[in-house]
Amino acid sequence: MIDLIAFDADDTLWHNERYFKLTKESFAGLLADYAEADHLEERLLAAEKRNLSRYGFGIKGFTLSMIETAVEVSGADLPASVIKTILDAGRDMLDHPVELLPGVGEAIDRLSKTHRLVIVTKGDLFHQERKIAASGIADYFAGVEIVSDKSPQTYSSVFRRFAASPDDSLMIGNSLKSDVIPAIEAGGWGVYVPHELTWVIEHAPAPTAHPRYREIRSVSELPSLVEGLSRG
Amino acid sequence: MIDLIAFDADDTLWHNERYFKLTKESFAGLLADYAEADHLEERLLAAEKRNLSRYGFGIKGFTLSMIETAVEVSGADLPASVIKTILDAGRDMLDHPVELLPGVGEAIDRLSKTHRLVIVTKGDLFHQERKIAASGIADYFAGVEIVSDKSPQTYSSVFRRFAASPDDSLMIGNSLKSDVIPAIEAGGWGVYVPHELTWVIEHAPAPTAHPRYREIRSVSELPSLVEGLSRG
Repeated sequence: MIDLIAFDADDTLWHNERYFKLTKESFAGLLADYAEADHLEERLLAAEKRNLSRYGFGIKGFTLSMIETAVEVSGADLPASVIKTILDAGRDMLDHPVELLPGVGEAIDRLSKTHRLVIVTKGDLFHQERKIAASGIADYFAGVEIVSDKSPQTYSSVFRRFAASPDDSLMIGNSLKSDVIPAIEAGGWGVYVPHELTWVIEHAPAPTAHPRYREIRSVSELPSLVEGLSRG
Repeated sequence: MIDLIAFDADDTLWHNERYFKLTKESFAGLLADYAEADHLEERLLAAEKRNLSRYGFGIKGFTLSMIETAVEVSGADLPASVIKTILDAGRDMLDHPVELLPGVGEAIDRLSKTHRLVIVTKGDLFHQERKIAASGIADYFAGVEIVSDKSPQTYSSVFRRFAASPDDSLMIGNSLKSDVIPAIEAGGWGVYVPHELTWVIEHAPAPTAHPRYREIRSVSELPSLVEGLSRG
């Protein structure tokens, strides 16, 4: 019997990666004189990975990694206007509107009548809070956990905090690595809802054989999945 | 009878502002050819204030504000090496060691035997977690709340989360604006422990007439203050 349903936020409840994609494209255009787009994308990803242990997740760290990459590829001759454009792009990303994915509003409304819902998301605390406030669905959630990393321990502590048995807890998200696998390892159910754009760092093989693993195409399929699980 | 003691972290438990101060001095040296130190400090503070609603608190936002200020004062001619130096300075700040303020270790050890201790800090989630882990005193705390802002509601929700009556809860910190006044407004005790370096944005008049306001010179005075309050 599922009691607690935990949702990832970015690219599970609302669009996120598309803003990174658009910004990376502008970034490639901006530095076209200095580096091929492909090469640049590689350098940027390398910078992001290198900085992850210091910056953590989020747009501020991404902006810093773009600036670092621009400095790297340009040599001594980078115009100040390029840096200014990158700073502006980072701020635009922080200001982007929160757009729910299709079917999310209805599914959350329906599930909130029968289950306790929480959000478990990583990234910049400040920006995630602003997005949740702007989402229009904040009131459906009994709690919001903004975490620096999503490990099995993270989910154990979320289940404990909401006094839910792991057996009766479900985590849904678009990252196998951060949302699905560690929630299953913590004893809960893991539901994978793939998103066409998922950051390469979040990729992992699906634990398709695991009895507490499920995959759905959209959050709108979650109410009937949960109903099915509850019937056993 | 004090039950729950909440601590601010930066410049209450450990040094923090000194790293900002050192970095600001290097920043002024770095851009000495473009702007007077005073003028530069003003511009940087203006950028920090302007960006606060998007970046929130923390070193990544500060680094981005330094870069923005460098671009602003330099015109078109900013060498890429200056940007690189600023990025490096930001990373050095993120890597700085955690050094407890004098007397903190002993006071925390003593208070933990009789009271529930928690940390309530704002800033980058990721960096604050790393600092708490590196502090050597994490195990003394029943909980750590990393928050995006410190309002009376923040403290009400902390007191509630730890099932403490506001009357029996105390918050100590070096910011009157963020630590002391909102905790008092939430019904708790507010203890001000001034630090010689406190960011100008955190300044506010002390509510010296309030019956639940106290000021001490060092965290090492907290155990006897708490004992005194408990005797009534």
